[in-house]
Amino acid sequence: MTSLPVAPDAFHVFDTTLRDGAQQEGLRLTVQDKMKIARLLDELNVTFIEGGWPGANPNDTAFFALAAKELELKNAKLVAFGSTRRVGMTAAEDPLTQALLDAQTEVICLVAKSHDEHVFKALHTTLEENLAMISDTVGHLVAQGRRVFVDCEHFFDGYKANPDYALEVVRVAADAGAEVVVLCDTNGGMLPSQMADIVTAASEIGVDLGVHCHNDTGCAVANTLAAVDAGVVHVQGTVNGHGERTGNANIVTVLANLQLKYGWPLVPAEALREATRISHAIADITNQAPNNRMPYVGMSAFAHKAGLHASAIKVDANLYQHIDPALVGNDMRMLVSDMAGRANIQIKGNELGYDLSDRTMAARITDKVKEREMQGYSYESADASFELLLREELGVLEDLFEVTAWRVLTGHEAGPEGDSEATVKLRARGDDGISAWVGEGHGPLNALDVALRRGLSPTFPTVSDFELADYRVRLLDQGHGTDAIVRTLIDTTDGVHTWTTVGVGTNVIEASYEALYDAYRWGLLKASA
Amino acid sequence: MTSLPVAPDAFHVFDTTLRDGAQQEGLRLTVQDKMKIARLLDELNVTFIEGGWPGANPNDTAFFALAAKELELKNAKLVAFGSTRRVGMTAAEDPLTQALLDAQTEVICLVAKSHDEHVFKALHTTLEENLAMISDTVGHLVAQGRRVFVDCEHFFDGYKANPDYALEVVRVAADAGAEVVVLCDTNGGMLPSQMADIVTAASEIGVDLGVHCHNDTGCAVANTLAAVDAGVVHVQGTVNGHGERTGNANIVTVLANLQLKYGWPLVPAEALREATRISHAIADITNQAPNNRMPYVGMSAFAHKAGLHASAIKVDANLYQHIDPALVGNDMRMLVSDMAGRANIQIKGNELGYDLSDRTMAARITDKVKEREMQGYSYESADASFELLLREELGVLEDLFEVTAWRVLTGHEAGPEGDSEATVKLRARGDDGISAWVGEGHGPLNALDVALRRGLSPTFPTVSDFELADYRVRLLDQGHGTDAIVRTLIDTTDGVHTWTTVGVGTNVIEASYEALYDAYRWGLLKASA
Repeated sequence: MTSLPVAPDAFHVFDTTLRDGAQQEGLRLTVQDKMKIARLLDELNVTFIEGGWPGANPNDTAFFALAAKELELKNAKLVAFGSTRRVGMTAAEDPLTQALLDAQTEVICLVAKSHDEHVFKALHTTLEENLAMISDTVGHLVAQGRRVFVDCEHFFDGYKANPDYALEVVRVAADAGAEVVVLCDTNGGMLPSQMADIVTAASEIGVDLGVHCHNDTGCAVANTLAAVDAGVVHVQGTVNGHGERTGNANIVTVLANLQLKYGWPLVPAEALREATRISHAIADITNQAPNNRMPYVGMSAFAHKAGLHASAIKVDANLYQHIDPALVGNDMRMLVSDMAGRANIQIKGNELGYDLSDRTMAARITDKVKEREMQGYSYESADASFELLLREELGVLEDLFEVTAWRVLTGHEAGPEGDSEATVKLRARGDDGISAWVGEGHGPLNALDVALRRGLSPTFPTVSDFELADYRVRLLDQGHGTDAIVRTLIDTTDGVHTWTTVGVGTNVIEASYEALYDAYRWGLLKASA
Repeated sequence: MTSLPVAPDAFHVFDTTLRDGAQQEGLRLTVQDKMKIARLLDELNVTFIEGGWPGANPNDTAFFALAAKELELKNAKLVAFGSTRRVGMTAAEDPLTQALLDAQTEVICLVAKSHDEHVFKALHTTLEENLAMISDTVGHLVAQGRRVFVDCEHFFDGYKANPDYALEVVRVAADAGAEVVVLCDTNGGMLPSQMADIVTAASEIGVDLGVHCHNDTGCAVANTLAAVDAGVVHVQGTVNGHGERTGNANIVTVLANLQLKYGWPLVPAEALREATRISHAIADITNQAPNNRMPYVGMSAFAHKAGLHASAIKVDANLYQHIDPALVGNDMRMLVSDMAGRANIQIKGNELGYDLSDRTMAARITDKVKEREMQGYSYESADASFELLLREELGVLEDLFEVTAWRVLTGHEAGPEGDSEATVKLRARGDDGISAWVGEGHGPLNALDVALRRGLSPTFPTVSDFELADYRVRLLDQGHGTDAIVRTLIDTTDGVHTWTTVGVGTNVIEASYEALYDAYRWGLLKASA
């Protein structure tokens, strides 16, 4: 049997979720989204995080400015992306090239045209000027002390059309000082059996090569591996395969294949065990429902429908799974729940400071979590709601306040925005009776927040520090229109900590209220602790 | 460059959506669902349709009984699936083998164990008895005039563990009269580079081989192609990659790759042009939201976001797509986004059938789109809202109805779900005065939908066909809590077409109402056109 190649001395796992991944239809990342995703990628121990295109996109410029101040990556290096200088000026004169330097990253990834037709029809210049643009820009950035990678856009199609020119682009980039030259299947039309010859031809130039694949033939991961087999030492991809059209190579799938199938120690085993959590947390941030059937980290990736082999699975689970799911933080018994295993619940409980070593207790809480997840709750990111559930089950949940009734009226008579009015009836700890509080606001959740805050602040002045930082809504059960199950996640901050709560219902307001109520409950518990 | 292999004389595209695809978590097919899907697969011109396991599953028994009477396939042949006879009886004695004959299909596909450990631990029998079970069952069915295919379960893992035994299973099946022996990567852990040697070893036996792959390494399609390159003449897969865990090889992706990349004429070109419609229709029947990023047939598979490329796409669209999307019945779509310039808007307008060649007009509409996108609107996927905006700017937007006021009350007194009540005041075209309509529902959007529907249906009975298929909410401007800007997207369907509308506001209900209002406006415009 063909043996798999051995690990090269240095190998780059290059993530471009924040740049090429953000090209996905419907996906828009704020600066804060990018900060959160970058921290998760750092936990996964990818080698590089491509953060965006400073200068070309104000949002990306702002991200790099904030990242320079606050990001503090532990494992990965941040990369700024940009293009070669424009036609008819020097790299030093081009403000977009300067913006790359201003982003203050050690590494810069430049995109260069390598398909002759694209030079003519998209750049409207000559083949020679394109080479000069690459040489100038790489040289200028290297002279400024940057490490430079060059993405050869449309390389494979370019090689098929004009192999000499495509290879000349690689050579010019290498001669100008590029550390890695990345061969891009920009239109995604390649098949694995076509990769080796082209990668081998380019590798004769002698520079370290990388590969960047899209999934238009359903082969992004396989094309990436075929290039690795042919000698590339740098693979680009995105978490959850985010990206334009059919998406990019899924970086987690590529990483898991290389680490677990090839046996290459690319990231610490503990980091790979976080892959499932990180993939799902990024899906929450991008507000894209994660694909349950995603390799390795999908909710169903190790789920078995009972039947034929249920008893055989009990005898020897490895007969029915291609790897131990724990290696990627997934679970064979994850049919219902992301946290299904009792061991997971125990670990999570310990993390939060609760002793769950009692097996009966841990089993009961696990059942409760499963039951709630069946209803649509997700505790993957909603730690605060999970801790409230835990405390309730352990009998140590102190009720600091009680809401006996609430309602919201939202209407629109004339103006461009509807106004909302909420009433909340509550009893705070130590109060004799129930009092009613009214809040007005933009939208029902805002109005409810105002009313709840008013009702709580006489007893708990600390609530004035609470601010709702993010609010996400997802429809769970498709095909039932407005009558479907809705899950809301709310992030609340007190300026120091941020906590996440979850609510579920067929009513978006009910689900939002539930997450809001938990946000106040948890915030006050922590403040009073 | 490596050239792709030429087409074999006979090649099987074997669909198992109805059998192995139905193993997917959350997927349940009724007999009528199966009938509809089988007809769609027949339109796609697959060679074989595996319909289920008669005898083992009452639903499948009923499907084969109905199919024998009513299905009347024009192109494909229906296949019954079953296992080799049970331990310790003859094939003729086993009622499950008889049930396969009773299903009255010309072709039967039998699953056989080919991994020694599975023989011991799942069948609890000897290696010899397993071979006898295969030989007896194939021989019995062939003697009854059936064509028999044999799926070798866990073949690749079995070959790695005990190659002699795995190959012996293939030989015994072939000797007993199996027409095709299918090598199954049941646990889905294979990589493309490992396929060739194992397939080649099996092909020395001389029987026609097939392949059946799962997507656990993200390589189901590539593994299938690697086996084809090594000589298999029969590929199994499922529409939309449905299946257990990470799913099966996507049969449409495999077919499109073989037909369009390899150049093999497996199905009529007209049939392949129906692939997008068929994929989406099957997603509707299975009630699984189709993956927008699916190769070839996904809604985003040929969608372009980058404003950068828009002018070059105008010059030569083929520079930016790996195939002509019309070949699979898909379309290139330009996404209108804040990165877009006038060129994007003009292309988009043309797509929708509007002449925007007037530069002043196109510039004005581009400014309007930019202004709206600054407020938080996103027309990337909300084509229907974009068309309404376009019509308004072009002065050709006919108002079929007018809403003068609306309000919703949502409250919670005791039960687990809040109830909502909406009032909508409207005047439909031709009405003298304004009338008020009330709707109750789960949640404010549901209540508003009911009220609006009631108010419109006397004048426009067609609204009863409209159904809200998806509803997405996103908070745009972070760090402002509940007072932040919210964007909602609503997908509406009339059973044939699906359209997407967008609403924006600080109020989630206001934003939802706006998208709902546009959904009805656009649906009625199209219905009255």
